Amino acid sequence: MRRLVVVGAGAAGMSAASAARRVDPELEVVVLEAGNHAAYGLCGLPYFLSHVVAEVDSLRAYPPTYFRDQRDIDLRFGAEVVRIDAERQVVHHRAAGRSGLLPYDELILTAGATPSLPPVPGLNDDHVFTVRDVAESVRLRGLLDAGHVGRATVVGGGYIGLEVAESLSERGISVTLVEALPRLMANLDPEFSQRVEDEVQRHVEVRLNSGLASLARTDQALILRLTDGSLFETDVVIVATGVRPASTLGSSIGANTGPHGALLVDEHMRTSVANVYAAGDCIAPNHIVTGRPAFIPLGPTANKTGRVAGTVAAGGSACFPGIAGTAIVKVFGVGVGRTGLTLVEALSEGFDAEATDAVGRSRAKYFPGSAQVDVRLVHTRDGRLLGAQFVGEGDDVAKRVDVTAVALHAELGVEDIADLDLSYAPPFAPVYEPVLLAANAAVAAMKPHPSPVP
Amino acid sequence: MRRLVVVGAGAAGMSAASAARRVDPELEVVVLEAGNHAAYGLCGLPYFLSHVVAEVDSLRAYPPTYFRDQRDIDLRFGAEVVRIDAERQVVHHRAAGRSGLLPYDELILTAGATPSLPPVPGLNDDHVFTVRDVAESVRLRGLLDAGHVGRATVVGGGYIGLEVAESLSERGISVTLVEALPRLMANLDPEFSQRVEDEVQRHVEVRLNSGLASLARTDQALILRLTDGSLFETDVVIVATGVRPASTLGSSIGANTGPHGALLVDEHMRTSVANVYAAGDCIAPNHIVTGRPAFIPLGPTANKTGRVAGTVAAGGSACFPGIAGTAIVKVFGVGVGRTGLTLVEALSEGFDAEATDAVGRSRAKYFPGSAQVDVRLVHTRDGRLLGAQFVGEGDDVAKRVDVTAVALHAELGVEDIADLDLSYAPPFAPVYEPVLLAANAAVAAMKPHPSPVP
Repeated sequence: MRRLVVVGAGAAGMSAASAARRVDPELEVVVLEAGNHAAYGLCGLPYFLSHVVAEVDSLRAYPPTYFRDQRDIDLRFGAEVVRIDAERQVVHHRAAGRSGLLPYDELILTAGATPSLPPVPGLNDDHVFTVRDVAESVRLRGLLDAGHVGRATVVGGGYIGLEVAESLSERGISVTLVEALPRLMANLDPEFSQRVEDEVQRHVEVRLNSGLASLARTDQALILRLTDGSLFETDVVIVATGVRPASTLGSSIGANTGPHGALLVDEHMRTSVANVYAAGDCIAPNHIVTGRPAFIPLGPTANKTGRVAGTVAAGGSACFPGIAGTAIVKVFGVGVGRTGLTLVEALSEGFDAEATDAVGRSRAKYFPGSAQVDVRLVHTRDGRLLGAQFVGEGDDVAKRVDVTAVALHAELGVEDIADLDLSYAPPFAPVYEPVLLAANAAVAAMKPHPSPVP
Repeated sequence: MRRLVVVGAGAAGMSAASAARRVDPELEVVVLEAGNHAAYGLCGLPYFLSHVVAEVDSLRAYPPTYFRDQRDIDLRFGAEVVRIDAERQVVHHRAAGRSGLLPYDELILTAGATPSLPPVPGLNDDHVFTVRDVAESVRLRGLLDAGHVGRATVVGGGYIGLEVAESLSERGISVTLVEALPRLMANLDPEFSQRVEDEVQRHVEVRLNSGLASLARTDQALILRLTDGSLFETDVVIVATGVRPASTLGSSIGANTGPHGALLVDEHMRTSVANVYAAGDCIAPNHIVTGRPAFIPLGPTANKTGRVAGTVAAGGSACFPGIAGTAIVKVFGVGVGRTGLTLVEALSEGFDAEATDAVGRSRAKYFPGSAQVDVRLVHTRDGRLLGAQFVGEGDDVAKRVDVTAVALHAELGVEDIADLDLSYAPPFAPVYEPVLLAANAAVAAMKPHPSPVP
């Protein structure tokens, strides 16, 4: 019997194992997971902290027994992979203090990503958290629920840092948000990160240009020193300074790596090592706008690449053309979304890029709840769409970012976008859709002097 | 000086006039409007009835003086066009009882659509309304506000009929909805119109297979007889049995017509008559899925085709590739949306079509407000997308219908759709987006036996 071994039981690993099972009911499918959770909705942890999500178990897509009982997947918790012998196709692992060998026909690496912590002493304090882990989040919520936390410091002004800052602030905790860069959400163009900053500053104290320099403990609190020399006290620290790919197992067997050390894969999720695939947060898949690998670890990509890896490893046919870098985040009262490249990114990638901005409404101007939506389309001077950014109310942004994400996949130009037949009804959308307003403005700017029709 | 004459000051007419002005600041632009409103949001009238929209003036995109003062457009109200002499390029019109002649260099017909009333005597009663007209809607709201209406009958179970039924029902009026066909929203596939019917029946009395046969008046009320022979009393009747194109001016000068008698135009909005263009609800533009003209009069199309007609008539360059038939409507607690073809339509158009249904969530399952979204993708057996339908909560549907509308414009297949990098964050979207779930199911159905990778 052929055996597939999957390393990691996150979204990518369980998607891979499930897809493989569907393709080949005879295949032996073993998943080795160092922790004790499978297919967890880690993105929900900030909302667990705030009690928006009451029970941590509701973040589980399936009960633990589901994969074994319903899908015939040999899911093993507490099983750490210590070494791979790619020549003999054997995985060396350790579980419950005992070592074992597991030969494989096909191997899928889905070890995910791990927090990229700043090189600061003291981060092992038990009042310092990352929100990447169920047990740690349960412990942090315990402290919050017991009323032991009046002040919290969030280090890092990206997606997770902002979500955690919001969650803690909404519990009445005094939150300081610390960011080493000069702006929050530095992966947006400055005009859009400014909008985020304006919103965040209405709720929490923001310290930009301020990295964490050191951390000391007193009986009662933690003392933080920032890179600007300032000192302040806090009860807990949440570090959300990004992640790095857990790619060392792959690189140890010679698999090629790319941006941020993430594993490189082809469109079938094959690494450069025979019979070894990779998927999820540990890879750098193709970016559909640049055509080059990019490390943008997000849940939907983990699911899709896991499914492709599992399908192909089990003998089926599947491919993954790439990511568009689509992302949205709720930041207090606003939603912020992006897809493709920002103007800053597009210019640094060498595109002859420009941005066209427009301000529209989320629904008919006269309809209650109609709100402002700010749009930026990033495009080449001859009209190829390269990316889009949005700020507005949450669902309003999610809708538009998806419209432009599809346009990127389809390689539409701004002229095509201006022609899109999008939905209209006063309660849901304005007759002049903001994306189309921006596209029309981009088209008009490209044709300052309309030429007569031939 | 060259003169452009636009007939009609609705969305298409004012878009045309404004676009022409932008292209050629020297052009004389005259708009002849039989009524006394320009660029009105007629789609908002149902919400004016319910007081969701307080003031009828808020439905106006611009104040009446705007076009003349800011855009140098000679907008004339109360000016009815009685005849066009296409050979001499002269418009015969009548205003305030006086006749006049207006020569034109270019003419744009945007007379819109008029209610298509059933051939029933008595519809001229002053308690019978259509909700296509500002003055009539103001008069109807006056009756409602005065407490003179306890019972209302809405004839027609399409978009407008449903919106009006909801608005009246929410004012506490006892509403009967009468539909001659066996189902409401007959332009959806039966499974989806059933969902609409289930929702509507929770709020108002629905009578299917029941056309309006006749109408009589007593001192106190109207007596309706339906085609099934039943009789009942009501205080007001709102007729919403669709519209027909106001295309007679065009056809009187020999312009070619198509479906429902709507004017046929090329992609530059030219009719078959020299120097005569048409736009908005009186035309049948190209449908991007069938490649044939279709009469689906909706606001965004009026704006787009008006803009193209005005641009081209003024000497600029523009084209309109066509409509996808995208539409959404709020029906009490649900939103319903469609784009492209339904399965019924696709089969009747001769496509080798099938439907793949999926049930997803609007946001992460564990997130408050996560709701069910029902998806149908209509596609050819080899995977070409032909259309999509959705039922769910309102904004959730609008988002997804737009994603599939872009996919139709871009001619994506279901395999492409499964790969889309759409936005994910627990408050806004689930990690398995419903559209992608449906696309994956369609792909899986196309490949029952996955073939090994070459």
